[in-house]
Amino acid sequence: MELQTAKGVRDFPPEEKILRQQVVDILRTIFENYGFSPLETPILERFETLSAKYAGGAEILKETFKFKDQGDRDIGLRYDLTVPLARFVGMNPNLKLPFKRYEIGRVFRDGPIKLGRYREFWQCDIDIIGSKSMVAEAELLTIVDEVFKKLKIDIDLKINNRKLLDGIMIFAGIKENSNSAILSLDKIEKIGQDGVEKELKEKGFSKDQIKKLFEAISKKKLSDFEKLLKDNEGVKELKELFLLLDELKISYKFDPCLARGLAYYTGTVFEVFAKKEAINSALAAGGRYDKMIGGFLESNKDYPAVGIAFGLEPITEILKTRVKDVKKTVTKYFIIPIKTLKESLIVAKKLRDKEINTDIDLMDRGISKNLDYANSLGIPFVIIIGPEELKQKKVKVRDMKSGKETFISVDSLKE
Amino acid sequence: MELQTAKGVRDFPPEEKILRQQVVDILRTIFENYGFSPLETPILERFETLSAKYAGGAEILKETFKFKDQGDRDIGLRYDLTVPLARFVGMNPNLKLPFKRYEIGRVFRDGPIKLGRYREFWQCDIDIIGSKSMVAEAELLTIVDEVFKKLKIDIDLKINNRKLLDGIMIFAGIKENSNSAILSLDKIEKIGQDGVEKELKEKGFSKDQIKKLFEAISKKKLSDFEKLLKDNEGVKELKELFLLLDELKISYKFDPCLARGLAYYTGTVFEVFAKKEAINSALAAGGRYDKMIGGFLESNKDYPAVGIAFGLEPITEILKTRVKDVKKTVTKYFIIPIKTLKESLIVAKKLRDKEINTDIDLMDRGISKNLDYANSLGIPFVIIIGPEELKQKKVKVRDMKSGKETFISVDSLKE
Repeated sequence: MELQTAKGVRDFPPEEKILRQQVVDILRTIFENYGFSPLETPILERFETLSAKYAGGAEILKETFKFKDQGDRDIGLRYDLTVPLARFVGMNPNLKLPFKRYEIGRVFRDGPIKLGRYREFWQCDIDIIGSKSMVAEAELLTIVDEVFKKLKIDIDLKINNRKLLDGIMIFAGIKENSNSAILSLDKIEKIGQDGVEKELKEKGFSKDQIKKLFEAISKKKLSDFEKLLKDNEGVKELKELFLLLDELKISYKFDPCLARGLAYYTGTVFEVFAKKEAINSALAAGGRYDKMIGGFLESNKDYPAVGIAFGLEPITEILKTRVKDVKKTVTKYFIIPIKTLKESLIVAKKLRDKEINTDIDLMDRGISKNLDYANSLGIPFVIIIGPEELKQKKVKVRDMKSGKETFISVDSLKE
Repeated sequence: MELQTAKGVRDFPPEEKILRQQVVDILRTIFENYGFSPLETPILERFETLSAKYAGGAEILKETFKFKDQGDRDIGLRYDLTVPLARFVGMNPNLKLPFKRYEIGRVFRDGPIKLGRYREFWQCDIDIIGSKSMVAEAELLTIVDEVFKKLKIDIDLKINNRKLLDGIMIFAGIKENSNSAILSLDKIEKIGQDGVEKELKEKGFSKDQIKKLFEAISKKKLSDFEKLLKDNEGVKELKELFLLLDELKISYKFDPCLARGLAYYTGTVFEVFAKKEAINSALAAGGRYDKMIGGFLESNKDYPAVGIAFGLEPITEILKTRVKDVKKTVTKYFIIPIKTLKESLIVAKKLRDKEINTDIDLMDRGISKNLDYANSLGIPFVIIIGPEELKQKKVKVRDMKSGKETFISVDSLKE
């Protein structure tokens, strides 16, 4: 048998999983701090749910793992956390709104394997279902600010509104294929204004339309669009949101070209990129999707919604580059008993009772082999307990970095 | 479209997920406290890995979800966390031993859906690879003791050793089909001695063999088996283990009939049941499997191993019966702004900065609707901030249980 993982998936050995857990812990703590509650939805979903209109769409369905269960039912692996959320909301009509939930879990896509694309990866989502207020957006973006401050990652937060983009299309006289024009505009940072112009021409938009598009997006301030587009709902929403963000001292950039995909979003859209690190993908992104859940549920009821997803993979990539001492464990003390097994187990128990992460030799090895072992795992301190130490009711503690050894009582050992 | 989950899987709404997370947090903290490091293996595995000899076996393969990826490769969903661990160990030949890892994650089985059996469920595993010492067992069972003390669940911890069972078979003159006889013995608590006798007769064991079997298991103390079986390796190992457990003041019961399945375990086996609660399945179980990983890897190298799995589902079932106030959130304070949105957002920020979980009205609703909402989620305190409160630089805090309202400064709000 050839030993390998399935294509497009990875193991995370302790040194990487420890880092991933730190990020997840920070996210979870902040999500709960802002009033979001945890929801767990299954990885297995009925294929009918995943392929419903208003769900992920044709492109994503091509990449959905599909199979049958013992009862010959069509099953798929979830490709995001939003479709299961919509199903959950639909199945729980008595849910109190707003429903603020977070879910951190794995999703699956059977796509081509390029650098940085995996078939199994984690999403960390927060969504607010039921509120039309821009305060909901402000809360999500305050969380963004908190998360990246805590992670010590400098970010650019870009914000736009799909209704403002719609307004720009009307201004440019574009009625048909406006979504296609928006898609081109969204690429302006990647392919430049010339590239966008070329693409728009190829798509058959007229010189005048293109000229007016560029005239619009040459404006940088929201107040310019207020004059240009008149009574535009998107401008009004952004104005309200920016006022709140200013009040909360959150830095952001208004980007009138930002669209973030098409079928899904109806209002505010936002994206977070690392300022200094050269990471291609967004660290977090999201927006308002007021029509999706109601449409998905074929319901007359309105389900305004806004959400954001944090990318565990790109965030961890950045943190990995900063780690100096790779830790393969979170253990603080490693105990080496020299013919003092029982007594050493009692010392281990004492330390553990103090909530100090402690390990102990399980191989009955000598001091030097045990020091090698502790060193290879990156454990900072080793405790040696021999008959002499026992007699004096003390232990020998070795600082693995400096090599310094001290002779102290067990009770004085601290985190 | 009919809204439902796939067969055999469940959503965990916040009130249940909060409880599940509490259990997982306790497990993880104690695992790390005892020197175990986290490992994350993928849910997708090559089917060849899952179906290898020494892997889960034919019974479990029947229940394995199997499908093809875009590259026409056979993929399966993992059915446990042990096979991925064995593969990981094999793929990392430079791993330092002992390798002590924990993994908490979902596994999948496409089995018949009976009460309490699900197709997607969590396993919480700790394993020690590389140590033959009974200290490894003692460490695992100390963790068991810690976990259930922390969860305030009284348990029966039953311990046996497969080599002792083998010795009983030799004593009874059973050479062929000894595994089958052991399987029958293992059922003695469920079907009684008469039931076991009947089964053994049906299986073709002789009167004399059965008599000697019952003679052996009528012994209750390990010292009796020491005399009866002579030089039995299992007795020696249990003696060593029990000495350690006595030293560590861990309560346990020696059960000479306990076998815990067959193909897998080679030495110590243990099972944990709730003492008071009527839960059929074990809360935790495991044992020593010294041959499995080496066999799986077709390796000449020895990989002694011992592990235990905690059952998130039965543990949570017990805790659920104890919960008096169902909490749909971990939020402590809910803020109702009365025409004081901006100021209220600042108050929210202050509380959150103090790590107090805080939520705020996003619907611009009045006081009574907001009180209903906070009440339905089980939020203990509501803060009302109106113009009058602002003027006095205070807020009104309502204790949702007693209905008592107090007027205090924001800075004096505490967890």
